[in-house]
Amino acid sequence: MRNWILPEYISDVLPREARQIESMRRGMLDLFACYGYELVLPPLVEYVESLFLHDDPALDLKTFKLVDELTGRQMGLRADITPQVARIDAHILNRQGTTRLCYSGSVVNTRPDGILSTREPRQIGAEIYGCADIAADVEIIELMFESLALAGLKQVRLDIGHIGLFHALADAAGLKDDARDQTFSALQQKDIPTLRAVTAHLAPELAAGLQALPGLYGNSNDVLARAGSLLPAVPGVTEALTALQQLAGALAVRGIGVRFDLAEVRSSDYHTGLVFAAYAQGFANAVARGGRYDRVGEKFGRSRPATGFSLDLRELSRLPFPTAQSAILAPAGDDRALIDAVRALRKSGETVVIDLGVQPAEAHVDRVLRLEQGNWVVRPLV
Amino acid sequence: MRNWILPEYISDVLPREARQIESMRRGMLDLFACYGYELVLPPLVEYVESLFLHDDPALDLKTFKLVDELTGRQMGLRADITPQVARIDAHILNRQGTTRLCYSGSVVNTRPDGILSTREPRQIGAEIYGCADIAADVEIIELMFESLALAGLKQVRLDIGHIGLFHALADAAGLKDDARDQTFSALQQKDIPTLRAVTAHLAPELAAGLQALPGLYGNSNDVLARAGSLLPAVPGVTEALTALQQLAGALAVRGIGVRFDLAEVRSSDYHTGLVFAAYAQGFANAVARGGRYDRVGEKFGRSRPATGFSLDLRELSRLPFPTAQSAILAPAGDDRALIDAVRALRKSGETVVIDLGVQPAEAHVDRVLRLEQGNWVVRPLV
Repeated sequence: MRNWILPEYISDVLPREARQIESMRRGMLDLFACYGYELVLPPLVEYVESLFLHDDPALDLKTFKLVDELTGRQMGLRADITPQVARIDAHILNRQGTTRLCYSGSVVNTRPDGILSTREPRQIGAEIYGCADIAADVEIIELMFESLALAGLKQVRLDIGHIGLFHALADAAGLKDDARDQTFSALQQKDIPTLRAVTAHLAPELAAGLQALPGLYGNSNDVLARAGSLLPAVPGVTEALTALQQLAGALAVRGIGVRFDLAEVRSSDYHTGLVFAAYAQGFANAVARGGRYDRVGEKFGRSRPATGFSLDLRELSRLPFPTAQSAILAPAGDDRALIDAVRALRKSGETVVIDLGVQPAEAHVDRVLRLEQGNWVVRPLV
Repeated sequence: MRNWILPEYISDVLPREARQIESMRRGMLDLFACYGYELVLPPLVEYVESLFLHDDPALDLKTFKLVDELTGRQMGLRADITPQVARIDAHILNRQGTTRLCYSGSVVNTRPDGILSTREPRQIGAEIYGCADIAADVEIIELMFESLALAGLKQVRLDIGHIGLFHALADAAGLKDDARDQTFSALQQKDIPTLRAVTAHLAPELAAGLQALPGLYGNSNDVLARAGSLLPAVPGVTEALTALQQLAGALAVRGIGVRFDLAEVRSSDYHTGLVFAAYAQGFANAVARGGRYDRVGEKFGRSRPATGFSLDLRELSRLPFPTAQSAILAPAGDDRALIDAVRALRKSGETVVIDLGVQPAEAHVDRVLRLEQGNWVVRPLV
């Protein structure tokens, strides 16, 4: 009869952590608003086929399924919010030109991402639809950095990759189906021996290019110079390298340093071009991630360029918790003057706790409201 | 291929409504905080048996079930948050004395409550644990009224009932099982003929008492006087009437008028004593509800008195939406002075939208950032 036991990798957010999450959530939504992002709140459950941007076996496996009693159709409990926001942009808002949207809410995964992960991340993020220009990616990355700074994260490292490089080389080599998947997977795991084996039969310059990708990481200028000499100039490669060059330049002006990792293909399945991840001291995993997912919305009847980032507020709750506001303890009672005094204090921004018994540990009561010579006055707690 | 179609009674919250919900949510959580309530965020999914305070077939039917892949056990997607908060009070925090907790989050129902309802209400509420005194109910009702005032609701009507009256009379009459359920159900539907039929065989004063309940509604003093004369003074009846008298008195001092409805037994299955509901013009259903649910936490190993209220923020979104803040349109670019000007404006609280194409309909751009004689200046949009 241990009814209070929660499922593994599921936990309550208790007052101190809740205060921190709420504070970060508000700060980030306010930040998004001052960049012109509009908040949307997609539902927790939808028909399952609407929850993916395209065939996405990884996201499908992470998604809890349930049956809609009204129709008998299968619904899913969302494991990601980005596809929902893309649906809203493509079909519900259906605006011309650039649309900036942001969101914040829980997602639920059937399995945790790792031994230290939760199955209910509290995802917050921002997306730009309708703009293919690198200026959109610059804005998203700037916003990601400001969000992390607001949460108190200093010395954030930015890793940037470009999935277009793999696809350009794989297209040129005519890699398809299993062969393409195996190469992608080897690259993803930076498994050099397998990468060599699966590319051995390709045209030498394409094999060399694919095999060079895992080594192309490090500080920006150096990596791009090496990439220019090591990768064949097949369609798509030059475009990707130019985009990376432009991005690094624009970010440098904004005080954001870049590290490239051209074999970085680990982001969500729907990413198609630039991908980026932010790392910070004390956090094993990326603290925020994002990238380009162009041609999004095709499934919802409208193809749009898109870029965005997201992070998990629970992951950041390892940062120090903010302290609670100090509070005034007031006696219970129906005395008119007491009621007025309590109301006035609360209106002025004070926390006033009515004494209904022993006080909770979390309320930092440091003053009391006391009747002295016919007046209700606030005195230090002694 | 209409992948954008949402399930019935499920909908997206789009920017204008989202802005309103977020604004009400923050206002209410801040209000709760200044009364000393601490925020908790229970998970969306739990083992299904933990989601109910006791056998609760109505809540069970409303709860989506899903299978935990890690253990094969059945989990539920929460249809109510109160039982989760009671679990946190009873077992997780496990404090002595009074504990005040509040929460805000989505719940999901298998079926809508009515033709105009959503299956995903956005529930927000506050609860006091560990205090059996009427002062706790007074505080909760005051908080409910302030929450509704903050949302912009004027002229709220408060209906108060007491489920203890039915139980006292039913206990005295020895009503059990089906007979008790039938009587309860007749009372709930104010079905007088059935109520007469199912109580006909009882002791005359108990039958008369049960039959009198549906007629006992209206302004406070009158109803309590009539109840005193019409209801037999069996154990529980006098206590309930005294509690109602005290409550009405304490609320009157606080400027809150009361209407009694002593047959009001429609609240959640877990309520045990006082129940109350707030009604407002333009809303068919109650805009907020609450009551006593003493002996809560027994299932989680610890019995505690409790009182609380909750409301659905989406229900309130029929109120007028707040307008968006006006915004400044700034050109895209990597010019250092431009970047600094945009940052300074945002820091001062302005919304600055970078021009990446056609502007979204919702951003009220009324000014532009322009280079004039070497300086970036804000000018009205002409």
